[in-house]
Amino acid sequence: MLRALYRLCCAFLLLAGSAHAADPLPSWREGPLKQALLDFVQRTTTPASPDFVPPLERIAVFDQDGTLWPEQPLPVALRYAAERVRQRAADIPEWHRREPYKTVLQGNDSSIARLGERGTLQLLLATHAGMTQDEYQQAVRHWLANSRHPRFERPYTELVYQPMRELLQLLEARGYRCFIYASGGIEFTRSFVEAVYGLPPERVIGNQAKMDFQLRDGRAELVRSQRVHWSDERTGKAGTVQHYTGRRPSLVVGNSDSDETLLKWTASGSGLRLVLRLYHDDPEREYADRRSSSVTPAQARERGWWPISVRDDWLQLFSPAPPAR
Amino acid sequence: MLRALYRLCCAFLLLAGSAHAADPLPSWREGPLKQALLDFVQRTTTPASPDFVPPLERIAVFDQDGTLWPEQPLPVALRYAAERVRQRAADIPEWHRREPYKTVLQGNDSSIARLGERGTLQLLLATHAGMTQDEYQQAVRHWLANSRHPRFERPYTELVYQPMRELLQLLEARGYRCFIYASGGIEFTRSFVEAVYGLPPERVIGNQAKMDFQLRDGRAELVRSQRVHWSDERTGKAGTVQHYTGRRPSLVVGNSDSDETLLKWTASGSGLRLVLRLYHDDPEREYADRRSSSVTPAQARERGWWPISVRDDWLQLFSPAPPAR
Repeated sequence: MLRALYRLCCAFLLLAGSAHAADPLPSWREGPLKQALLDFVQRTTTPASPDFVPPLERIAVFDQDGTLWPEQPLPVALRYAAERVRQRAADIPEWHRREPYKTVLQGNDSSIARLGERGTLQLLLATHAGMTQDEYQQAVRHWLANSRHPRFERPYTELVYQPMRELLQLLEARGYRCFIYASGGIEFTRSFVEAVYGLPPERVIGNQAKMDFQLRDGRAELVRSQRVHWSDERTGKAGTVQHYTGRRPSLVVGNSDSDETLLKWTASGSGLRLVLRLYHDDPEREYADRRSSSVTPAQARERGWWPISVRDDWLQLFSPAPPAR
Repeated sequence: MLRALYRLCCAFLLLAGSAHAADPLPSWREGPLKQALLDFVQRTTTPASPDFVPPLERIAVFDQDGTLWPEQPLPVALRYAAERVRQRAADIPEWHRREPYKTVLQGNDSSIARLGERGTLQLLLATHAGMTQDEYQQAVRHWLANSRHPRFERPYTELVYQPMRELLQLLEARGYRCFIYASGGIEFTRSFVEAVYGLPPERVIGNQAKMDFQLRDGRAELVRSQRVHWSDERTGKAGTVQHYTGRRPSLVVGNSDSDETLLKWTASGSGLRLVLRLYHDDPEREYADRRSSSVTPAQARERGWWPISVRDDWLQLFSPAPPAR
């Protein structure tokens, strides 16, 4: 009898396991949105489908800050930049009088957050000019390995939203090339994109530091300058995506007004497109952020976009914490 | 007796066929260079090799004009730009007095060639401002389908060097991501990169037109401006490769002094790198071009680079012409 029960349990676990494995989006709550995601992938990657997209044309774009991981209370690159400024401020007294340094040295998270992408880039350029990209990325990786999110007390790279990771992996598995729009200079995100997302650095797009060409001990090196290579001055993120990928994406996810041109441009493409807009409406598990969006979920729906509610659509936000070492 | 001979012939053809299929570089003459190419691929893609390069890190870069196809007597994008200027010159009388238009309207191929990449970009921007990238690329594709190289009398896209195509395909088959550096604005080359190389548009890198964001009949569009997005102002092509790919390549091929920073930067990387420099030394089958290179093959060798001789290293230059329709 016990033996029969044991066998029954084993069979059940096996079945449950395979059912779970068959769902590529287990962190998404069942409902119309999840079904829309699955349908989109199915329709664009099935050769017989009228909405079939040839493999070379399969592009998806994810905004990073606030879409792939939290940008509250500070975007991660800006947190890093602010710490670097504080470390070096003793050597550069004029920073106490000059913006954006002054805000970093005298302000709090919420005033620093208002420095935005321009401020972040300026701080990162000032504190890392003359470094090669390799040196810069090693510094970033070292910081990431030793820093924790103030609320969640986990490394930032463990705070990639699990539902987004599942969506990205599903798309990659079905032949999509996913690009990540990174604010505050793309080399910051390129430093961990392979380890965290399994994607090569060319999949990270956005503004970046201009470089200079130098010979060091006979070796040719590219070093970071203090000038910015803007890819989206007049076009917003839409222009950045065209710049790097040469193509209007089939699927796009953003969370703030800074994603506006990208979402509109994607939605304006012919054929099947999926435009997703994430809303941070879950102060219990995360944050409530109304500041970054002037478009309500209802307005997004009217435009044919899908709002994503953190509170209602996501069963879990983060992967379970790994066991303490 | 005849039947036995027939069978012998069949067996021989089969054997010869499979020997040919086993050689991924049949258009390259047997010798140290061909062996170096095969060794490099083997050593960097075999997991047990001390020179193994993980798949995400496998980047190769090919210059396009003069490396992947002829740039004599005129680079293809410049030929296209010059024709567009001539077509529209009747409407814009001042072009007869203003450079670079004046050179196009009054010069010959060799004076037009001296306009270089800056001239090409300026001409393409002036003649295509206000178009979406889709419209521009359709115009380019239409022209390519109806134009012939003045000497070889074949469409330009049939003049991709067969040995280079084989090398590119071998690298792609072994997990490398090949990038193409295109002069004169990358959207020109992106218009045919899928059809000709089987690569997606993000694999084409270089300078490009800046864009503006517009609403047209309620649809969001990116349109070409007259401003240039320079990716290589101070760094040459090395900076462009870092900009787009985020990585120093493992293998690089160029043919002129404009590739200098890219070749030096690649060679300065740690680990196994292969730096190739193509020399056009075959006026019989193609062109002799000493102008574009101040580095001799012997000097290239001293630097640890491999010179490629069109005359000595390539058994055939182009794929056989398809049968006339």
